[in-house]
Amino acid sequence: MIATDIATRVWNHTFKLDPIVRSLLDTDFYKLLMLQMIWGLHADRSVTFSVINRSAHVRLADEIDEGELRAQLDHARSLRFSKQELIWLAGNSFYGVHQIFRPAFMEWLADFRLPEYELTRRDGQFELHFHGTWPYTTMWETPALAIISELRSRALLRSYGRFELDILYARAKAKLWEKVERLKDLPDLRISDFGTRRRHSFLWQRWCVEAMKEGLGDNFIGSSNVLLAMETDLEAIGTNAHELPMVLAALARDDEELRRAPYRVLEDWQTYYDGNLLIVLPDTFGTQSFLRDAPDDVANWTGFRPDSAPPLEIGETIMDWWRERGVDPKEKLLIFSDALDLETLEAIYRRFHGRVRLSFGWGTNLTNDFRGMPPGSHDALGAISLVCKVSEVDGRPAVKLSDNPAKASGERAEIERYERVFGKPGYPSQKVVV
Amino acid sequence: MIATDIATRVWNHTFKLDPIVRSLLDTDFYKLLMLQMIWGLHADRSVTFSVINRSAHVRLADEIDEGELRAQLDHARSLRFSKQELIWLAGNSFYGVHQIFRPAFMEWLADFRLPEYELTRRDGQFELHFHGTWPYTTMWETPALAIISELRSRALLRSYGRFELDILYARAKAKLWEKVERLKDLPDLRISDFGTRRRHSFLWQRWCVEAMKEGLGDNFIGSSNVLLAMETDLEAIGTNAHELPMVLAALARDDEELRRAPYRVLEDWQTYYDGNLLIVLPDTFGTQSFLRDAPDDVANWTGFRPDSAPPLEIGETIMDWWRERGVDPKEKLLIFSDALDLETLEAIYRRFHGRVRLSFGWGTNLTNDFRGMPPGSHDALGAISLVCKVSEVDGRPAVKLSDNPAKASGERAEIERYERVFGKPGYPSQKVVV
Repeated sequence: MIATDIATRVWNHTFKLDPIVRSLLDTDFYKLLMLQMIWGLHADRSVTFSVINRSAHVRLADEIDEGELRAQLDHARSLRFSKQELIWLAGNSFYGVHQIFRPAFMEWLADFRLPEYELTRRDGQFELHFHGTWPYTTMWETPALAIISELRSRALLRSYGRFELDILYARAKAKLWEKVERLKDLPDLRISDFGTRRRHSFLWQRWCVEAMKEGLGDNFIGSSNVLLAMETDLEAIGTNAHELPMVLAALARDDEELRRAPYRVLEDWQTYYDGNLLIVLPDTFGTQSFLRDAPDDVANWTGFRPDSAPPLEIGETIMDWWRERGVDPKEKLLIFSDALDLETLEAIYRRFHGRVRLSFGWGTNLTNDFRGMPPGSHDALGAISLVCKVSEVDGRPAVKLSDNPAKASGERAEIERYERVFGKPGYPSQKVVV
Repeated sequence: MIATDIATRVWNHTFKLDPIVRSLLDTDFYKLLMLQMIWGLHADRSVTFSVINRSAHVRLADEIDEGELRAQLDHARSLRFSKQELIWLAGNSFYGVHQIFRPAFMEWLADFRLPEYELTRRDGQFELHFHGTWPYTTMWETPALAIISELRSRALLRSYGRFELDILYARAKAKLWEKVERLKDLPDLRISDFGTRRRHSFLWQRWCVEAMKEGLGDNFIGSSNVLLAMETDLEAIGTNAHELPMVLAALARDDEELRRAPYRVLEDWQTYYDGNLLIVLPDTFGTQSFLRDAPDDVANWTGFRPDSAPPLEIGETIMDWWRERGVDPKEKLLIFSDALDLETLEAIYRRFHGRVRLSFGWGTNLTNDFRGMPPGSHDALGAISLVCKVSEVDGRPAVKLSDNPAKASGERAEIERYERVFGKPGYPSQKVVV
C-alpha cells in the first residue's frame, strides 16, 4: 500500500505564501531589551533604519522578486505578539532576573505591530527604509534581514531538483555536526546562537540550534532568537547593539556631547538593567577612543563584547585596560561574536581560555554556512554581508565608525567629523565577508 | 498552526510489523534467470541452502530477536508475485532480449511461494536452513540475507535518538555522494548496484540506487534488485552464481564428472540464454583450474565475472587466456563485483579501462557503508560477511573452493577431495570483510 496523505500534498502544492517570519518573537533578544529602554526614554524620536548590502556584487533585486519581498514584509506587519508569547516574556526569567520587562512596557507591547516600509529598486539593489518613531522602526532590523536572507536562499534553491536538495541538506547537517564535534573538544566552552539575521532559513536555524543543544549540552548556553529560546527551552541571549550610541550621537548638539554619547548610553542602560546585562559594546566609534575616555566605573560592568577589531588583539587590549584599573580579568567576561568561523573561534579560545570569562555568539557561520555545498554547478549559496542600520535621527544623519574602517556607515562629511572627535580606528581595513 | 497528521502518527506508533521484504521481486535478478533453468532441468533435486555468518565475532542471535526474525521470514513466506509484477517480467526485455521468461515458467511462477525454513540457535548464532526442492529453496537466498542484514541494522539503531538518526543518515548521504562525485571522474564507467543481500535497509538501498542514477546517469547501468529496477526504470542486472556448479558438482558420480561439472553448467546455460547473458563465473572451484580445463568455445562467451581472486591479477590472467585463444579482449567483458570499495574500483578501472570491456557490480560498500558513521559512541554498524550457500544436494554435501581459501565452504573431507580434483587455489588466503 502506498499511503499518500492527500491533504498534506494538496496543501504543499497550493499554498499562497510560506511566511518566513511567523512570530514577532522571531527576533534577537537584544532588540527587546533595547526596546524597553527606547520606549521608556526615547519614544518620540524619529529614527530611520535602512538595509545596506555590503556585498554589492550580489545584485539582490535581480535575485529576489520584489513582489515576494513585499508579501513577506506585509505578512510580518500582520503579526502581533500572541498571548502565550506575552505570558512567557512576562513570566520567564532572563539572565536570572525575574520580570525584566515591566508591566507598563508589556501592556504597550501587546498592541505592537511593525510599521510601514519604503521599498524601491536601484541598480540591481533594493532600497529598503523604515521611517517612524524609534520603538517601532527598531523592531524591523532582524525580521527584515531574515526575510531577505531566506528569500535569497529560496530563489537560489528554486532551480534545485528534489534530489539535489536532499544532498544539500545532508551535507549541511554532516558539516555542522563536524563543527559540533570539534567544539566538544573545548572544555568549559560557552557558546550561543547569534545567527537569526543572516540565517539560511528559519527551519535550518532551528535545526542548527537543536544540533548544538544535542551535541554540546550545557556548553551551548542559548540562542539570541527569542522564539527558538522559548520553543527549545534555552536561554535567550543578548544585551545591546550599536543603534543606541548611534542615535544618541546623532542627536548630540556639539562635539563634546558627541564624545560623551557612548557613555550616556551606559548610564541609561544601567538605569534599566544590571548584573549580566551590563555588557559594553565598545566599537561603535572605535574601541581605542572608547577605552581612553571611558569613566572608571565602566570597569565595574560585567564585560565587553568587542565587535569588529582583530579579536586576539582587542581581547588583550581590553584585559590590559581592566588591569590598569585594578580589575582582575578572570572576573570579567569577553563575548566574541564577529565573523566567527571555527578556526577563529578555536584561536580565540586557545588564547583566552582560563585568563578571562569567555563566551561566544556564533552567527552566520553557524546558521548559513553553505559554501561549496551545492551538489551541482550552483555556487551562489554563500552568505552575504547584509545589515540594517540607523541612517537618520530626527532628520540628522547617523554614523557608525567601527574598528574596521570598511564597516563605517553614514555620510562622508559626518564620518570625517566623527573621526575628528573620536580619532581614526587604530586597525587596518578588513574585507567584510559576513 | 501546527498540523499533525494524526492518522500517520498513530499508524507509525501502533503497527505490528514493518516488513523488510514486501515483494518476491525484492531479490537478485540472477536468481530468476537461474530459477528458470533450475525449474526446467533440475526441478526435483533436493537442495538445502544454509545461512553462514563468516563474521563469527558478531553474535547475530544476541543482536537480533528470534521472534522478530521469524515474523519477517513468515511475512516473506506470505508473499506471491503480484499480477503487475508478472506482467512486467513477461513484457519487459532484459539485456535486450524479449520474453526471456517462457510462458510455462511464468505460469508456474504465478503460484510460487517461499518454502518452510528451519531456525535454531547455537552459540550466539542462528542456524538457518532451507530444505526442499531446488526451485523453491534457491529463492530464499537473497530475502533471507536481506532480512537478517536489516534486522541487525534495526536492532543497533534502536538505541539511537531521533537526532542521532538524523545525523547518521545525513552523513551516510553525504558520504555516498562523495563516492558518486569521484565515480563521475571515470569516463565510460559502467557500474550497477549489487547490494541487495547485505544492504543496511531496503529504503536505504533505494536511496543509494536513486543517488547513483541521479549522479551517474547512463553510466549507472542498473540494479541487480528486480523490484528496484522495475520501480526506478533501470535495467535488471545479473546472470548466474556459484550454486549452479556447486549443485552439479555435488551430484557428480566420480571425479571425472566432478571435473566436468563447471562446464556442464555452461552447456545448460547456453540452452537457455545467449548474448550478454553468457557470463562465466569461473572461481567456484578455482579460476586457474577452470581456465586450464575449459573447452575452447568458452572463449566465445561474452565475458567473465571473476569473483574472489585479487582483481588486477585475475583480470590479466583472463585476458591472457583470451589472447592465447586468438580472442581480442577489447571485444570481451570483465565484470568485477567482489568486495569493491572505491579505491579498489578505481584501481581496477585504471588498470583495465580501454583494454577490455569493463563493468562493475557494487555491493555492500554501496548499500551498507556505515563504518565510522554513528554520531555517538556506537560503533557496530559495519556490514558483516553473511552468505547463504548450498550445503547439501540429494543428501550429499556441497562444496565451494573459491579463489580465496578463506571463502571455501563445505565439509573438510569433501573440500580435500575437490582440491585433489581441481587443485588448490593459486592465491593466498584473504581476510573476508564483506
